[in-house]
Amino acid sequence: MGDPAGIGAEVICKSINIMGNKSIPVIIGDISVIRDMESRLGIKHQTFKRFREGNKGDIEFIDKGRIKKIKYGISRKEYGRASYEYIMEALAIIKAGHAEALVTCPINKASIHKAGVDFPGHTEILADFFHVKEYVMMMANRKMRVSLVTIHIPLKEVPSVITKDRVLSCINVTNHCLKEHFRVKKPIIKVCGLNPHAGENGIMGNEEAFIKSAIDEAVSSGIDVSGPFPADTLFHKVDCHAFIAMYHDQGLIPVKTTDFKRTVNITLGLPFIRTSPGHGTGFDIAGKGIADPSGFMEAYRVAEMLS
Amino acid sequence: MGDPAGIGAEVICKSINIMGNKSIPVIIGDISVIRDMESRLGIKHQTFKRFREGNKGDIEFIDKGRIKKIKYGISRKEYGRASYEYIMEALAIIKAGHAEALVTCPINKASIHKAGVDFPGHTEILADFFHVKEYVMMMANRKMRVSLVTIHIPLKEVPSVITKDRVLSCINVTNHCLKEHFRVKKPIIKVCGLNPHAGENGIMGNEEAFIKSAIDEAVSSGIDVSGPFPADTLFHKVDCHAFIAMYHDQGLIPVKTTDFKRTVNITLGLPFIRTSPGHGTGFDIAGKGIADPSGFMEAYRVAEMLS
Repeated sequence: MGDPAGIGAEVICKSINIMGNKSIPVIIGDISVIRDMESRLGIKHQTFKRFREGNKGDIEFIDKGRIKKIKYGISRKEYGRASYEYIMEALAIIKAGHAEALVTCPINKASIHKAGVDFPGHTEILADFFHVKEYVMMMANRKMRVSLVTIHIPLKEVPSVITKDRVLSCINVTNHCLKEHFRVKKPIIKVCGLNPHAGENGIMGNEEAFIKSAIDEAVSSGIDVSGPFPADTLFHKVDCHAFIAMYHDQGLIPVKTTDFKRTVNITLGLPFIRTSPGHGTGFDIAGKGIADPSGFMEAYRVAEMLS
Repeated sequence: MGDPAGIGAEVICKSINIMGNKSIPVIIGDISVIRDMESRLGIKHQTFKRFREGNKGDIEFIDKGRIKKIKYGISRKEYGRASYEYIMEALAIIKAGHAEALVTCPINKASIHKAGVDFPGHTEILADFFHVKEYVMMMANRKMRVSLVTIHIPLKEVPSVITKDRVLSCINVTNHCLKEHFRVKKPIIKVCGLNPHAGENGIMGNEEAFIKSAIDEAVSSGIDVSGPFPADTLFHKVDCHAFIAMYHDQGLIPVKTTDFKRTVNITLGLPFIRTSPGHGTGFDIAGKGIADPSGFMEAYRVAEMLS
């Protein structure tokens, strides 16, 4: 359900109809928040089954009972604590083999920090729980998929972090998941340069040398990957199964600009499928009934498809 | 005409029909290259007027007579020299008051360097010629306009170059040109952050403080400008007259991804209108007759409109 003060409960309530057709969803959150949202939206109270008691067409609910009366749009320690418990419950279920995929609604960094949880976001929590070192954040919509070599670090730290090993790891994880989960028989991958015009032969930066050596090694291991290409002219024609971007905005701008509503965040490299909508907690609109569920619906759809 | 070994002559030949309707174009280049291209394309040899002898509907040509037999797709000192002379001729004409706008076809950096011309590109040549210090590169298509605070520098140099003065200058020049040339009465401008999530209150970088102080000063001088906003979620909804991006790929990715063919480069802050297509010399396809003239046509159309 994500942060209870965000738009998580709302997008779930608005997406009930598309869930449960091909899979049995287990919503993990606080039933009080769901009921409050249903009342605000003026929709009937959904009947949920208990965990592992549902059949095809049913929706299961695990109520963590953490929230008495929700106040939307604010950061609170107890909301951060609740968000974290929802995730931990989900991970326990997955570890026990009772679920194949996880769809997360957005959490609030400040709130989980207040609750003493020191992770930058979901992705890092999940990777830590399963002791996974090589994982990749991919953003995807129906037009394109982009994997990121670096994610949530200041721009000035990006160039020094672009090493051959990091780029190669991102290529390898992406290639593996395209085959394994996306069922692409022969994945084609294209890689961005770091600098304007991909450095233009070293005139505008030289980190492309590291990127090139990673690509060369991946090619020699049999992967169909090419680049580094100038990023500005790369995304208008999607002739590959995934792009590799060097940093946050380079990769997220093309995806979110081309289809913002249906942009899905997919974590690659975990022992299970994990997706989430591309948007945040939406504190500015939370509780108002105006949140768009398209991103969550697409995240659910992609999780079903990949698993 | 741009670099004679590039696709400049070809896109001009393919655009003859759209020129000369609202303006009298003066093509500056080598007639031998145009004739060669017309033959390759199998189109009739256009009749040109001499400079300042044309009337409405005519096309004038200034033949610099630099090229005997063109070889497409290669970098040569003589081609760099020719490209540079075409530009110098154009600037002399503009300085003399005989033209209001300049549309440039792409030049090749390596070739002009071989010819001893030490500029990174057109924009810097033009600014130097007119002793202009405050100029801005804007990339625009029919969906959005983006002005850049920094252009052709390595990514690792970008953060230290983002100063309050630079951002403010870019906002001021953009605002002025939107009013002066684009005839926008009350321009609305939105500014990107530098870091992921615009730094998220300093968690991921702090250069947003400089950007914010530039915005504050611009606002207090009466400009409708806001930000800094996270760049990844900014461009999917175009609710302003121009965006300000901090660096090359941040600004060019959204423009080129949304309408690559009709992306136009506009130099703001010069004492005349200057546009160019968003693409490069196209050495890989030059001379083959397959170049797409959409970018040049759009650059010509925008130059006419703005002047």
